[in-house]
Amino acid sequence: MRFHTRKWVKPQDLNPNASLFGGRLLEWIDEECALYSIIQLENPKVVTKFMSEINFKSSASQGDIIEIGIDVVKFGNASLTLRCEVRNKMTRETIISIENIVMVSLDELGKPQAHGKSEIEFVKDRLKD
Amino acid sequence: MRFHTRKWVKPQDLNPNASLFGGRLLEWIDEECALYSIIQLENPKVVTKFMSEINFKSSASQGDIIEIGIDVVKFGNASLTLRCEVRNKMTRETIISIENIVMVSLDELGKPQAHGKSEIEFVKDRLKD
Amino acid sequence: MRFHTRKWVKPQDLNPNASLFGGRLLEWIDEECALYSIIQLENPKVVTKFMSEINFKSSASQGDIIEIGIDVVKFGNASLTLRCEVRNKMTRETIISIENIVMVSLDELGKPQAHGKSEIEFVKDRLKD
Amino acid sequence: MRFHTRKWVKPQDLNPNASLFGGRLLEWIDEECALYSIIQLENPKVVTKFMSEINFKSSASQGDIIEIGIDVVKFGNASLTLRCEVRNKMTRETIISIENIVMVSLDELGKPQAHGKSEIEFVKDRLKD
Amino acid sequence: MRFHTRKWVKPQDLNPNASLFGGRLLEWIDEECALYSIIQLENPKVVTKFMSEINFKSSASQGDIIEIGIDVVKFGNASLTLRCEVRNKMTRETIISIENIVMVSLDELGKPQAHGKSEIEFVKDRLKD
Amino acid sequence: MRFHTRKWVKPQDLNPNASLFGGRLLEWIDEECALYSIIQLENPKVVTKFMSEINFKSSASQGDIIEIGIDVVKFGNASLTLRCEVRNKMTRETIISIENIVMVSLDELGKPQAHGKSEIEFVKDRLKD
Repeated sequence: MRFHTRKWVKPQDLNPNASLFGGRLLEWIDEECALYSIIQLENPKVVTKFMSEINFKSSASQGDIIEIGIDVVKFGNASLTLRCEVRNKMTRETIISIENIVMVSLDELGKPQAHGKSEIEFVKDRLKD
Repeated sequence: MRFHTRKWVKPQDLNPNASLFGGRLLEWIDEECALYSIIQLENPKVVTKFMSEINFKSSASQGDIIEIGIDVVKFGNASLTLRCEVRNKMTRETIISIENIVMVSLDELGKPQAHGKSEIEFVKDRLKD
Repeated sequence: MRFHTRKWVKPQDLNPNASLFGGRLLEWIDEECALYSIIQLENPKVVTKFMSEINFKSSASQGDIIEIGIDVVKFGNASLTLRCEVRNKMTRETIISIENIVMVSLDELGKPQAHGKSEIEFVKDRLKD
Repeated sequence: MRFHTRKWVKPQDLNPNASLFGGRLLEWIDEECALYSIIQLENPKVVTKFMSEINFKSSASQGDIIEIGIDVVKFGNASLTLRCEVRNKMTRETIISIENIVMVSLDELGKPQAHGKSEIEFVKDRLKD
Repeated sequence: MRFHTRKWVKPQDLNPNASLFGGRLLEWIDEECALYSIIQLENPKVVTKFMSEINFKSSASQGDIIEIGIDVVKFGNASLTLRCEVRNKMTRETIISIENIVMVSLDELGKPQAHGKSEIEFVKDRLKD
Repeated sequence: MRFHTRKWVKPQDLNPNASLFGGRLLEWIDEECALYSIIQLENPKVVTKFMSEINFKSSASQGDIIEIGIDVVKFGNASLTLRCEVRNKMTRETIISIENIVMVSLDELGKPQAHGKSEIEFVKDRLKD
């Protein structure tokens, strides 16, 4: 699993009990899945369709640095299934993991559209072509 | 199911494809579950522990009004299991629904704490006592 | 008066003296009046035209849950006059109340437009028709 | 009346009808009154106690620049009464004006506290002393 | 140098070490330079092109009031070079200063456009004409 | 240079001219430099002290994905000098680059503190020890 995006837990990310607000964490995960899919599917019009169950294993505190990792589970016809894990950058302790997040590629009218992809591509390889 | 909190979908709630950003919706749901649990369990220290799978059935657009409904599924010893549904206020179309969201009541040290509740209470009844 | 929307007072809602920032509270009230009017007038184009005097009776602290109540004072020709009260959900203490908030229904060109409504309607009754 | 703070109306400041969200404007006014009072009363613990009626005379659009003006109406014992006007920087058209905004100086315990001030002071004069 | 806009340092403006987040400060400066240029160049389409080196001389804490000052360094053909200083309103201590910030006036297609200005104008003088 | 954090340009990140707000970009860069330094210096108390000149080479639009890259220029005694580049993920076009960003490690009292580091470390290597 590749971990890219990192976040610094700031006061505006806390719940009133002074730990990382779960809703903010879900917002970060959803954004990361969206942009990962946009890059892989080369289509800016991608939506979240499904998330499998979510286990909140540990939390984070102000000043912690977390990183968000994404793996591809499966390329569907119009969909891309991802696995996501968020962990504490220093301790590598897992905060949350989600086994299946289904993203769907849409056409101009908002209908599912085959994306023609079947494996992970790296942008540097695309640019070389 | 009782629907309380309503949101007006504003420009800052949209994703770049101009529909309601899924991450924002999850943030709203998490906040609503937290405050519902705090009221029922009469304990401000409540955390989200688990969410069952999430199906994004429809989306919402700028200017739409959505409402968030919560139902109690089960009172556990230290936990409270909720069901949540978000729908479009005008059309009553369902946007998202989550069957089980487990909230846990914590003590001062952050450990699960029995909450002693077994049924829904209304604040007006509490105040009458 | 019916109380719908609830808010959990989070760190980003505080002023530097650690109580609920008055400006944030006014922002929440304005949003609630707008969406209440949109639902009642069945017109998404509604603006705030006037607020009568505002008395800040008490404040709220981080972790408090507040609820926002709205009542109809009067249906005008193109306007809808509301009364608003915000209170602490647990103690039912009033935080703020505003006797008259005048919302105006606009047409496509931004001019006041008769809305043809004269009483409160519930969406469930509309859908039955 | 002296106009200090200026704001650039950005996408996140709009309501879904694409004009400046009234709640955001009230938030900006409340912040400006608070900081003006803190400077004049030389006490960081100041709260908004009262606002007289608010007339929304015109609105603003994305990209507009607005400026917020404050005048002192009266120095009370523990209070400071301000007048506020917001206008469009280019056209000088008034957007909103509020005749009386009462700010109260508090002591450590949150009780009103005499501030001992009776006229507007400029920081440059204070520093000269 | 004229100091206009003032900001009240609130919890959401802090970094996790409880001082003013440098990124927020840069955001405030960039907005102030943009709106200053829009007013002077009478063109809403202005972008930041360059900033000379930035020295963070001191910081600010929650509850502090800062003010942002702007001076014109030079009117170019399509550009306007500004100097910016941010200071603590009460102590007048400098927080940050930037010697050269180059703003560029653009035409409809996003290309640099001569602005025809060569000196600072005050809006009140423009309106008299 | 290693590129980690990615951002999806959303409506709330735009200036009124519908391109990525420069202030938001500077905020993202400052956060990335802070968290990179915290990880390398193993000290959560790190502040931005200096940024060399900033050239805004190109901009970004709603829906674009940008990535932020950081390189170490030099380990000082209490400082860490970084180089930062932001680029468009799909086209690899550079948006901004900053040659020297000096971050300083502080002790409990906010004074510069020797950090004892002289080369880049990877967390996985630290954990192996």
